[in-house]
Amino acid sequence: MNISVLGAGSWGITLAVLLHGKGHRVTMWEYDEADARMLDKERVHTVKLPGIRIPEDITITNTVAHAVHDDSYVVCAVPTQNMRQAMRQVATVLHAHPDTHVHGWIIVSKGIEHSTRSLMTEVLEQELPGDVSRTLAVLSGPSHAEEVSRSMPTTVVVASHNPRLAAHIQQHFTTDTFRLYTNEDVRGVQIAASIKNVIAIATGICDGLGFGDNTRGALLTRGMLEMIRLGKNMGAQEATFTGLAGMGDLVTTCVSKHSRNRRIGELIGSGYSLAQAAEKMVMVAEGVETAKAVYHLAKQYDIDMPITREVYCTLFENKPPQQAVSDLMARKVKPERWGVD
Amino acid sequence: MNISVLGAGSWGITLAVLLHGKGHRVTMWEYDEADARMLDKERVHTVKLPGIRIPEDITITNTVAHAVHDDSYVVCAVPTQNMRQAMRQVATVLHAHPDTHVHGWIIVSKGIEHSTRSLMTEVLEQELPGDVSRTLAVLSGPSHAEEVSRSMPTTVVVASHNPRLAAHIQQHFTTDTFRLYTNEDVRGVQIAASIKNVIAIATGICDGLGFGDNTRGALLTRGMLEMIRLGKNMGAQEATFTGLAGMGDLVTTCVSKHSRNRRIGELIGSGYSLAQAAEKMVMVAEGVETAKAVYHLAKQYDIDMPITREVYCTLFENKPPQQAVSDLMARKVKPERWGVD
Repeated sequence: MNISVLGAGSWGITLAVLLHGKGHRVTMWEYDEADARMLDKERVHTVKLPGIRIPEDITITNTVAHAVHDDSYVVCAVPTQNMRQAMRQVATVLHAHPDTHVHGWIIVSKGIEHSTRSLMTEVLEQELPGDVSRTLAVLSGPSHAEEVSRSMPTTVVVASHNPRLAAHIQQHFTTDTFRLYTNEDVRGVQIAASIKNVIAIATGICDGLGFGDNTRGALLTRGMLEMIRLGKNMGAQEATFTGLAGMGDLVTTCVSKHSRNRRIGELIGSGYSLAQAAEKMVMVAEGVETAKAVYHLAKQYDIDMPITREVYCTLFENKPPQQAVSDLMARKVKPERWGVD
Repeated sequence: MNISVLGAGSWGITLAVLLHGKGHRVTMWEYDEADARMLDKERVHTVKLPGIRIPEDITITNTVAHAVHDDSYVVCAVPTQNMRQAMRQVATVLHAHPDTHVHGWIIVSKGIEHSTRSLMTEVLEQELPGDVSRTLAVLSGPSHAEEVSRSMPTTVVVASHNPRLAAHIQQHFTTDTFRLYTNEDVRGVQIAASIKNVIAIATGICDGLGFGDNTRGALLTRGMLEMIRLGKNMGAQEATFTGLAGMGDLVTTCVSKHSRNRRIGELIGSGYSLAQAAEKMVMVAEGVETAKAVYHLAKQYDIDMPITREVYCTLFENKPPQQAVSDLMARKVKPERWGVD
């Protein structure tokens, strides 16, 4: 298969190397010119994915026109806030070469476009020429790039409204240590992947406050129910949230020392303000902006999301984290599945 | 309320102290005579729950007849394999004093009776006089005693076929840091609490092999689907498994450094045999016996439980753990919800 990977971040590089190892012809496009040139020469990204060598016969380019081929699959791994801009460049190429046949667009970036609250599939549908809905797929799940690139056993879901496409991707991406499951809930997979970062911040806050494993188990479970409540209202299926894209990714993110979202929460739980905590981070945690979006989505759909609300108040209204936890625990007692069924 | 706590292990002591703090009159019964006398005198169990003082006005007795009162609630906190024997003693008292009115039996021990594969509610129904089904409740969830006794925020479910009883217990057990949710799936809560220890062993094995967070996220999620598959066949509801008694307890157990089940798995993943690993443990991990029971239940119900099967083969058939993981990853690719719906 001809595969183009758009975006040479840690996840893009990881998938390019994995797919090359499966025998596919891989081209990688990187928006940042200096990064593209450096990668083409050095064949390793010492900051984003140290120690992982990119084989010489993976073509690396800074020119979109050189990365979108006929009879190909395109892996979209650019940051979610840059996805629309990248797709506009791709669209320009496709308009200039209308015979270019892309069999599948595989979105592997997790997040919501903040300015429009659009899912990534919506961004592609809006920006690419023609009706691409039957060629879209989303790949998500507990998959830290650092671990996948070191062949740690990993499982993900690939979701598409086109079951044949999902099965095809499953077949051609699976390796001995990277296992794909198919799923049809394209919206649910994307929503789960986004909201989970808000719960990761909440977990970090409780870690910062010195709480233990009981609290963590509680937050993940009650947080998942919040995700389900919102997700069902947005047209997603409950089962997706209890699967790899929801629970799986949530667990991995919340227990990981590497998660930026958990880490920023931990700093805030330890007494730092959001501004102070953000200053201590090398990169901004995506869940901070997502918390804002989810808080407003909950209002829009009139859904009770107490953990999201307390994260929002702690981040943006200077609510003391200890008070946020007390308020969570002191709410009126309820049945476990309240507001879900 | 008059409350009797049967069993002065770490969980029994924790609940006795918590309920006393809520203003209830608490009596605690301990089967082991030496332990009962020591606790009555010292008011602290330096091995099972160091640092937690048992107030003087909690009566501690070694005589069941002194622990079962009229107009009372009984918390059953004895080890699951001793539950039947303890209930026979209680039954003797109730037969001798037929006017003793126990409003509720609250089972807080987690496990299946190995010899009969009975749930604890079934043991009580079989051993106590009369029809006790409307007075039974099960309390479960992510609740390490060490953390509850130190007021770490904790959430649990209380399940009963009698909603009024569940609501009553919820009202009278909830504190600022111990929050109860009601649930009606009595079987599901008990099954989830038992099977989760098998998945905890699997997680430990992968930790011992040096795998990372992706693998952990995968095991917990795929493990939960196995629990759901078996649970639904045994008459439980799926939602219970994604709630506090299932996912919540699973997460807490699998990330905890204190979990004996995770720990024995870790030793086996590091190359020890079951016998060698068991020798290094102060107490036997309950999940080892449960793995046997669940493996046979899966056969009995003809359900595919690949993680349980690999744990069983690793524990009891000397299968190398690395091979078990390879076999898990190499299975035929599948849809995510295969065999669940």
